[in-house]
Amino acid sequence: MPTYNEMSREELLQEKSELEARFEEVKAKGLKLDMSRGKPSASQLDLAMGMMDVLNSDSDLKCEEGIDCRNYGVLDGIREAKQLLADMMEVSIENVIIYGNSSLNVMFDTVSRSMTHGVMGSTPWCKLDKVKFLCPVPGYDRHFAITEYFGIDMINVPMTPTGPDMDLVEKLVSEDESIKGIWCVPKYSNPQGITYSDETVRRFAGLKPAAKDFRIYWDNAYGIHHLYEDKQDYLPEILLECKKAGNPDMVYKFCSTSKVSFPGSGIAAIAASTNNLVDIKKQMTIQTIGHDKLNQLRHVRFYKDIHGMVEHMKKHADILRPKFEAVLDVLEKELGDLGIGSWIRPRGGYFISFDALPGCAKAIVAKAKEAGVVMTKAGATFPYGKDPQDSNIRIAPSFPTPEELAMAAEIFVLSVKLVSIDKILETK
Amino acid sequence: MPTYNEMSREELLQEKSELEARFEEVKAKGLKLDMSRGKPSASQLDLAMGMMDVLNSDSDLKCEEGIDCRNYGVLDGIREAKQLLADMMEVSIENVIIYGNSSLNVMFDTVSRSMTHGVMGSTPWCKLDKVKFLCPVPGYDRHFAITEYFGIDMINVPMTPTGPDMDLVEKLVSEDESIKGIWCVPKYSNPQGITYSDETVRRFAGLKPAAKDFRIYWDNAYGIHHLYEDKQDYLPEILLECKKAGNPDMVYKFCSTSKVSFPGSGIAAIAASTNNLVDIKKQMTIQTIGHDKLNQLRHVRFYKDIHGMVEHMKKHADILRPKFEAVLDVLEKELGDLGIGSWIRPRGGYFISFDALPGCAKAIVAKAKEAGVVMTKAGATFPYGKDPQDSNIRIAPSFPTPEELAMAAEIFVLSVKLVSIDKILETK
Repeated sequence: MPTYNEMSREELLQEKSELEARFEEVKAKGLKLDMSRGKPSASQLDLAMGMMDVLNSDSDLKCEEGIDCRNYGVLDGIREAKQLLADMMEVSIENVIIYGNSSLNVMFDTVSRSMTHGVMGSTPWCKLDKVKFLCPVPGYDRHFAITEYFGIDMINVPMTPTGPDMDLVEKLVSEDESIKGIWCVPKYSNPQGITYSDETVRRFAGLKPAAKDFRIYWDNAYGIHHLYEDKQDYLPEILLECKKAGNPDMVYKFCSTSKVSFPGSGIAAIAASTNNLVDIKKQMTIQTIGHDKLNQLRHVRFYKDIHGMVEHMKKHADILRPKFEAVLDVLEKELGDLGIGSWIRPRGGYFISFDALPGCAKAIVAKAKEAGVVMTKAGATFPYGKDPQDSNIRIAPSFPTPEELAMAAEIFVLSVKLVSIDKILETK
Repeated sequence: MPTYNEMSREELLQEKSELEARFEEVKAKGLKLDMSRGKPSASQLDLAMGMMDVLNSDSDLKCEEGIDCRNYGVLDGIREAKQLLADMMEVSIENVIIYGNSSLNVMFDTVSRSMTHGVMGSTPWCKLDKVKFLCPVPGYDRHFAITEYFGIDMINVPMTPTGPDMDLVEKLVSEDESIKGIWCVPKYSNPQGITYSDETVRRFAGLKPAAKDFRIYWDNAYGIHHLYEDKQDYLPEILLECKKAGNPDMVYKFCSTSKVSFPGSGIAAIAASTNNLVDIKKQMTIQTIGHDKLNQLRHVRFYKDIHGMVEHMKKHADILRPKFEAVLDVLEKELGDLGIGSWIRPRGGYFISFDALPGCAKAIVAKAKEAGVVMTKAGATFPYGKDPQDSNIRIAPSFPTPEELAMAAEIFVLSVKLVSIDKILETK
């Protein structure tokens, strides 16, 4: 089959007419499908229902250290929860603080603290004329929302198949003292599913920032969220790499169990150097008496240890894998040869990233919505919601059922085709 | 019996010698007792153990609105949790946002947001030369720690038996635009157990602050924490009073279930006007996807409604009342006639406040520690930890057993007597 670009105006109009007929058919079904957010499905949540039973009124609610988890105290988390999340983050237990239910909240607090109190003694960012963050794009909209909320200028850095464009990152970071951070989802990235290469990680660890208070915001949200047991990406551990490179304090690592146990009812953590943790605890000790230790205990009693968690994640993978494959198969079958879009086949994470012809993303999302499929807003994967190419669309296949997904994917490719034909026709 | 001041030098020395002998006796027991923090005792925590059973793997984990509480979503709390805490706070459900596990964290975030983003469009406080808070004293150390952390100047306002000195509050607030807030624990106050009078509340509601972004931080931590069923204090509802006075936006009200269910594993809330809630949600929607809905559901399923919570609080009272009375009885019996200290008999809350002779508080706390009784650090009830009179001591009788308390109270009064005699001897 020729690509759409190779087709004549007449051929395109003919194709369009057939696609429109099919589109009207599916539209008439009045579907309501949501591929907009990275939400686990009910069957994934069912996997952790045992967590509802591990603590009951007969349970010993003391943690290993003998502390009554029902009462006040323990600022930075009970030891066994620290150990579990340390193993999940591949760091030492002494580098971990356990937080509440949301790693997003930890990241927000980290930026907020830097605004009001600086970083390890630096000038509070709110006292500076200008603060900037580097934002690998496409990226995670909620990261960008935090920096936008605090009035931090965001600079786009293109993603490559091996991670952010490190030539650009190194150049910008070393030249501009107002650049204070970079948002990273280093493994199975949101939305592309890219895992940073070993070289990229090493180059991150070796950065020579002009700003002493520059930090890498390493949101390892999908560290154990593989889709394939036999095809897993490997990511060097950033705290150790930074330490080896003589930059032990340059990174904050974030994680949570939101997509392991229950979103909203999981536990979150930060990992960082001792110097950073001392700095963080100065805030934390004022902010709270401590986070929910019963929920920490509930997680440890359910998963027992990192092995239990890894086994649990295989069950998630068994549910997610067919969904990803269903969407990817439709994309490949229907769009593979047409030259109107590209995507990467991820080995983990929660998203598929689709790059349409420039200028088509918004129209595709709008078109899919006509037929009842809600996609992430076009542009959302870029700072300020502005995709300069109007090209990137994030597909979140986790929540719908496989049957719904097959239908949603068909509507999506129909929308891509229809919008792309219109775009190509403009030039014919 | 004469007061210590009326006694001669010789009489005092004789008394001191007897007290010292008794002190050495109890000291020799090598006790380890803690009256420092307002922690519920294990038997109080046992009251809520049923909460560990209300959710299990067979439970329907959907809230009233049909939302799966295991998944992402619902920024400001599930409806039934809002209703429960609205009733607890005596406000309408539409004025409530449910947060995570700690009202302290909500207060911290409220000040932090004001620093970086101002209040309903005002200049961010971090951009101002000077920001001040009024601090009724004695007060809650963790409140003062928040304002100190953010570099906010704290101005002491003396407490009276009816609440803060309102003449002074009205004067300062109306004259000084840099005064942006006041910390209040209006019912069974920390540490005195004072409930603001109706007139005090009305005068609060009628304040005419020079600063448009002035807010009353109304921490109603002990709103339903009565000690006596038949002797309860009544506090007019501040949101309504502010509305009546034409100042609907002037107050934030905070509460949590920390001392209702489990400290650290409770749920917290803020109540405020619609204008304030809109402002707050602008931050919240960036900060988190939502708080722990399963824990919200757990609370509602356990307490069912405010009636269930009120009944539950009677059980807390049954445990706490004898403890308070044990301490108060020792104070009255041993110190009642001696003129070396004063205190108020609280009808609720978690503390007894003791005012020693000026210049004696630190020495008394140190003396008690010698015999193994840990008290709240002297000065802690004042901003910057500085009690200008060195007089106030906070007694927290909730955690020890009644037997321990009797012993601790004896050591405390011995310490008060010994230190007071030394102080009076200086002048004889």
